[in-house]
Amino acid sequence: MIKTPYLLFLGDAPDRLAAKVAQGIKDWRPELCVGQLRLEGCNADMGLPDLTIEEAVAKGARTMVIGVANRGGYISDSWRSVLRQALEAGLDLASGLHNLLREEQDLVLTADQHGRSLIDVRVPSVRYPIANGVRRNGKRCLAVGTDCSVGKMYTAMCMEREMRERGMKATFRATGQTGILITGNGVPLDAVIADFMAGSIEWLTPDNDEDHWDLIEGQGSLYHASYSGVTLALIHGGQPDALILCHEPTREHMRGLPDYQQPSLEELRDTALIMARVVNPDVKVVGISINTQHMGEEDAKAYCEEVEARMALPTVDPYRHGAGRLVEALDS
Amino acid sequence: MIKTPYLLFLGDAPDRLAAKVAQGIKDWRPELCVGQLRLEGCNADMGLPDLTIEEAVAKGARTMVIGVANRGGYISDSWRSVLRQALEAGLDLASGLHNLLREEQDLVLTADQHGRSLIDVRVPSVRYPIANGVRRNGKRCLAVGTDCSVGKMYTAMCMEREMRERGMKATFRATGQTGILITGNGVPLDAVIADFMAGSIEWLTPDNDEDHWDLIEGQGSLYHASYSGVTLALIHGGQPDALILCHEPTREHMRGLPDYQQPSLEELRDTALIMARVVNPDVKVVGISINTQHMGEEDAKAYCEEVEARMALPTVDPYRHGAGRLVEALDS
Repeated sequence: MIKTPYLLFLGDAPDRLAAKVAQGIKDWRPELCVGQLRLEGCNADMGLPDLTIEEAVAKGARTMVIGVANRGGYISDSWRSVLRQALEAGLDLASGLHNLLREEQDLVLTADQHGRSLIDVRVPSVRYPIANGVRRNGKRCLAVGTDCSVGKMYTAMCMEREMRERGMKATFRATGQTGILITGNGVPLDAVIADFMAGSIEWLTPDNDEDHWDLIEGQGSLYHASYSGVTLALIHGGQPDALILCHEPTREHMRGLPDYQQPSLEELRDTALIMARVVNPDVKVVGISINTQHMGEEDAKAYCEEVEARMALPTVDPYRHGAGRLVEALDS
Repeated sequence: MIKTPYLLFLGDAPDRLAAKVAQGIKDWRPELCVGQLRLEGCNADMGLPDLTIEEAVAKGARTMVIGVANRGGYISDSWRSVLRQALEAGLDLASGLHNLLREEQDLVLTADQHGRSLIDVRVPSVRYPIANGVRRNGKRCLAVGTDCSVGKMYTAMCMEREMRERGMKATFRATGQTGILITGNGVPLDAVIADFMAGSIEWLTPDNDEDHWDLIEGQGSLYHASYSGVTLALIHGGQPDALILCHEPTREHMRGLPDYQQPSLEELRDTALIMARVVNPDVKVVGISINTQHMGEEDAKAYCEEVEARMALPTVDPYRHGAGRLVEALDS
C-alpha cells in the first residue's frame, strides 16, 4: 500500500507523454493529488497547484510519486537532490521506473535515516500464495484484449468510475505498474514468479460482498506470443464472471511482433470463454470495448455499430462514449 | 550447465522415493554417473558403485548431485560435512532442494575458498529475453497434459531415447528441476519472472538442423488453475510442430485442486491446438501418452486401445510399451 495523498513529481518532463503516469493519477484519482512539483524545463502540467515539498507536506501529502519517465534510464543529479529533500521532509517515494530507487545508495541511506519507504512498484513486495482455485464471493469483471495495449486498463477504470457514480460497489484492481501508482496498490503481475501468478490474482481479488464488483486490469493477450502466459494466469486467478473484449482496430500487427496478426473478436471471445469456464462455468462475455483514439468521430461510431451488429454485444469506446452500456451489461 | 560426470549423493534417504532425483539421473543418463555416495541409514540404492569422494574424483567426477529430498527443509549436520568435503576435493555441488545451497554460509565460504560452484537449479541463472515469436529452424515436440504430474517428462525422455536409438537427432529440453539435474541444463520455468517465461523457452530451443527434434518437457496444464499460465508460455515459446497429449486415467480430481475435474482428451486436444496454432499454424496432435502406472497389464492395454479407437491417434504408455509408435507419429 502506498500512503496517500500524493505530491506528483513531474521532474523535467519534456512533454505531456513523458508524464503519462502523473496524468493517469490526475485523471483517475484527482482526490489523491495535493499538487505537482516541476523542475526547470518541465513542459508537462497537470493543472494542479505547483507546490514546494514543504507546502505539500503542510497540505498533508504522504508520498511523492515519480510521475515521469526519466531519460536514459538513470536518475539525474537534478532529480536526486529533490528526491532526497522529499525523504528528509517526511515523504515516502514511489516509482515505476526501470532503475529502482532501492538501488540508489544515497536514497536508501536518506530513507533509512528518516524512517521513510522507497516503493518500487515494479518489484513485488508480497509473498504470494500458489492459487487454490476455490470459488470466492462477490463478482469479478476482466478485460481481455486482441493484443497488448489496446485499452484494457482504461476500460476497467471507466467502468469503475461509472459504477461508483451509480452507487454500485466497485473496485479497480491494478495488475500493472501504472495502475498500481494510480490506485496505490495492486500486483505487478509481469514481475511475479511464474508459479505464483494466478495466486497473486486470487490474493488481489479476495472474497467480497455478493453485490461488489472487482474490475480487474487485464494484461497481455491470449494471442500474444510473448505474454500470453500472464494473461491466462490472470483469467484463472481472477475467476471472472464477466469478460469485456478489448480491441484497437488500426493496429497493423501484434504489438512488438511484426509477423503476427491480431485474432478476430470472434476468436478471442471463443478462446477466452473456453479458458475462463475452467474456473467459472457461468462466465459470460458481456460487452466490447473499442479503442478509437486513432479514428475520427464518424468512423468510431460506425465501427462500433458494425461490431455491435456482428457480435450482438454492447460495443462502445468507454473513454469516448462513456461506460454506461458496459456497466448495464454486467447484469444481463 | 552442470559439469559432468556426476557422483550421486543419496544421503540418508529413508526409501527409494526420497531419492527420486537420483533414480531419474540413473534411469535416463546412466553414462553420466560414476557412482553413488550413501550415508548411514540410507535405504535407497541405484545399483551404482559406492564411492568415497576421493574415489569419485579419481574416476573423473566433476559434480556431486544431491539426488535426495532432505527432511524438514534444512540441511542436516551429517550432510553438511560431506558437502564441504566434496567442495574441498574439487567437486561442484548441484541441488534442486527448496532450501538453497547459496544460502548456507559455510558452503558458500568453502566453495569460494576452493573455486567451486554451488548450483541451485531452482533459481534461474540466465537473464532470459522477452519472446519475439520469430520462427526457428528444426522441429519441436511438446507434451501437454490433462493435469500436472501425468508423465510429461517421462514421455519426452522415452521419445528422446527411442529416437537416438534409431539414429535420429533428438534433444530432451528440461523445463523443471528434476529434468535439469538429469540432463545437466535447462530452464527452471516455474521460477522464471512472468514476462520472460516464453522467452526462456525460445532461448532453450534455438535454431537447429531441419531434421533435429527438441523434445520439450511439459509443465502444468492449460486446465490447471494454479499453473496454466506456465503451460501457455511453454506452448507459445516452444512453437511446437507436434503435440503429445498426456493423461493419467485414475486421477480423481486435478492435482491439488479437489474441486476441479480433468478435461477430456478431446477438450485438451482442441484447446491446445487453438493456442499452439497462434505460433505455428501447421502444428498437429500426433499421439497420446497414457500413464498406466496404477493399472494392471490388461487394464492398461484395454484403456489404450479404447482411447486409440476413440481419438484415432497412436496411444501408448511409452514407459511400459515403448515410445516407438509416438516417434513414428512425428513423421505423419
